[in-house]
Amino acid sequence: MKVAILAIGDEVLSGRTVNTNASYLSKVFESLHYPVVKHHVCMDRLESIVHSLSLLYEHVDLVVTIGGIGPTEDDLTKEAVSKYFKEELVLYPEIVEDIKNYFAHQGAEMPENNIKQAYFINGAKIISNDQGTAPGMIYEKLDKTIIVLPGPPKELVPMVEKEVIPYLQKRQNGWHIKRQYRFMNIGESLLMDRLQSFINNYSSLKIVSYSTDGGIDLIVSTNNKDNTLLFEEACQTLERNMSQYIIGDCKKTIQELVVHRLIEKGYSIGIAESLTGGMLASMIVDVPGSSNIFNEAFVTYSNESKVTRLGVSKESLETKGAVSEEVAVEMAEGVKKTTNATIGISTTGIAGPGGSTSRKPVGLVYIGITMNGKTKVYRHVFSGNRDRVRKKTCDTALFYLYKDFLDE
Amino acid sequence: MKVAILAIGDEVLSGRTVNTNASYLSKVFESLHYPVVKHHVCMDRLESIVHSLSLLYEHVDLVVTIGGIGPTEDDLTKEAVSKYFKEELVLYPEIVEDIKNYFAHQGAEMPENNIKQAYFINGAKIISNDQGTAPGMIYEKLDKTIIVLPGPPKELVPMVEKEVIPYLQKRQNGWHIKRQYRFMNIGESLLMDRLQSFINNYSSLKIVSYSTDGGIDLIVSTNNKDNTLLFEEACQTLERNMSQYIIGDCKKTIQELVVHRLIEKGYSIGIAESLTGGMLASMIVDVPGSSNIFNEAFVTYSNESKVTRLGVSKESLETKGAVSEEVAVEMAEGVKKTTNATIGISTTGIAGPGGSTSRKPVGLVYIGITMNGKTKVYRHVFSGNRDRVRKKTCDTALFYLYKDFLDE
Repeated sequence: MKVAILAIGDEVLSGRTVNTNASYLSKVFESLHYPVVKHHVCMDRLESIVHSLSLLYEHVDLVVTIGGIGPTEDDLTKEAVSKYFKEELVLYPEIVEDIKNYFAHQGAEMPENNIKQAYFINGAKIISNDQGTAPGMIYEKLDKTIIVLPGPPKELVPMVEKEVIPYLQKRQNGWHIKRQYRFMNIGESLLMDRLQSFINNYSSLKIVSYSTDGGIDLIVSTNNKDNTLLFEEACQTLERNMSQYIIGDCKKTIQELVVHRLIEKGYSIGIAESLTGGMLASMIVDVPGSSNIFNEAFVTYSNESKVTRLGVSKESLETKGAVSEEVAVEMAEGVKKTTNATIGISTTGIAGPGGSTSRKPVGLVYIGITMNGKTKVYRHVFSGNRDRVRKKTCDTALFYLYKDFLDE
Repeated sequence: MKVAILAIGDEVLSGRTVNTNASYLSKVFESLHYPVVKHHVCMDRLESIVHSLSLLYEHVDLVVTIGGIGPTEDDLTKEAVSKYFKEELVLYPEIVEDIKNYFAHQGAEMPENNIKQAYFINGAKIISNDQGTAPGMIYEKLDKTIIVLPGPPKELVPMVEKEVIPYLQKRQNGWHIKRQYRFMNIGESLLMDRLQSFINNYSSLKIVSYSTDGGIDLIVSTNNKDNTLLFEEACQTLERNMSQYIIGDCKKTIQELVVHRLIEKGYSIGIAESLTGGMLASMIVDVPGSSNIFNEAFVTYSNESKVTRLGVSKESLETKGAVSEEVAVEMAEGVKKTTNATIGISTTGIAGPGGSTSRKPVGLVYIGITMNGKTKVYRHVFSGNRDRVRKKTCDTALFYLYKDFLDE
């Protein structure tokens, strides 16, 4: 059963409202293994909504509409559904009572307009709305189903959780298995190059990739039970051959993985940042519970600050420059010492647009990590603008910390 | 000229990616007075994209596609455009060079797949992409125009700002006047309440608001020359009555305004952060040229660090607590002193989800700012999750710094 999501409203088309309802609903359908094949957004006009419905039902069996069921004149979704299905809207007296009660609860009388919200197609299942005056409906006719929902997420979400999901679960009985992997420290095109023969070998499985914040998510799945062994074999092959880039199952960000692992191990971390300017510390602090493993960080942006706060040697700064392997090492070791932490981590580099030299391009970055007397330094040249170079530096620093120092 | 936006990608249909590009583009078109009448999202399949193009061109003159121009086999947007317009894709050798340079810059060779990204319709205008390997294109045939853009917002937005907006402005030649204002330190619903009578008084002007990163942008415009005087009067009224919330014309972020003003004045800044954990320093460092006004920052997350690094008194921490007016003041004054800067700024608060007490709720934040012997402290209770509370704290700290210490 294929699904389409149709949002109705000029506020979405004008960009004022981001269509987060569509992504929420897509996730709900994905989790129930209903394929969502289209999202449409159309204007608050009767003919525009009817036209969209006819287009969508050429390709799908189930349409979910969002919005256009308020009390005003431009709320026309139910009118359009009625026109499309050639079924009259009828008054549901018990819903009139519900709406009156909703207003009474706030010490008000129901405005006359709101009576409109108690009209539905005869025989439709009504979805009650605890958070507002616009109930939704589910209506089935022949092989077509429509689910009508209100626009505000705080009304829509509880209605979906309470009534729509149970309804969908009842209708569906497919089998499905999937596994997710997050890749870091490799670009999407290089990754897909490396996986080309793997994807060809397992062409009967569904293998899709998404670039996400900080990495690439790869999802292997099948809905054919006969492929179970093949699926397991594919996952094992992937895990074996690509382990150096895989950092978990996409459920946690790299900063969550790092902080949770530090807590488990009882380690603490001291942070010294130059080009990243506090971003790395901020990513750590963003994880609840980070106070268990983190006391302080230094943003040593100037050379003088690197000397004063971290004990970086003037000689290294003069002979090698602030963006060098030597300074990254001294920053990491210096911050470990001064913060008395288990681990010291440092970043130094050229975020651009200025600051490059003939031998040090924009994007050149050194990351230093020290623990138990062992210090490693990593060199990268990142592309992109200032913000992107800084963000990639933080993600990569956390990646190396996790893979080289915290992995069993 | 009517516009439709077509996003291509299973990651949007699966709900993994929220289609923020569509709302961004809608706002761009709205600000240029092009009506956007449809948003569609379709699957990464050739026939699906071609079909969507034919449907959309029944209603609009201009389609903008988002995504599907990467190097992999499911990137099929340009192939679909070629099929729809019945025009071959041809290799642009200069783009091959650009892509090779992009990889060379990272010390890598161009993977073979990426050659695909240098194919475009003959005669198309190429939109260069500084942030990735996928250039876009603008192509016109008879009365139809297509603009092809990549999916990642970090690539799409600069391409739109640099090449698409100027292109659209050139095509449009109606008379038009507009002025933009960014509001901060006021919520959108309160702002709209406060502006209700203003909007009613000037109902012949177009007045739209967008909530943006860190604030709300209000755009006043008209395309009727007879309204010029009315337009000027409205802008003056707005500037006079709402000046306490207005921080410029939306062209610069608050951190750019602050850094540029500090540079103009020859001031320097020292930063001490608790709950924001480096985010405030990172926002400053994100502005090119910040090294002129910023040497270092301290992330003093633990109490001990506040004492050791900033000289906060143990007494204040014990009697008032780390989240208090007193500690915010001592942190700001302490960091000014130890960094020897013109200005000291501090943040302390409860980001949640834990850490609240009966008298100190989640979201309680103090911001301290000191300069020339004058220290001010600001108290807020922000709503939202941990990340949001921290981000609002940084925006608000920069807002007060700009309004109370740097404004003439």
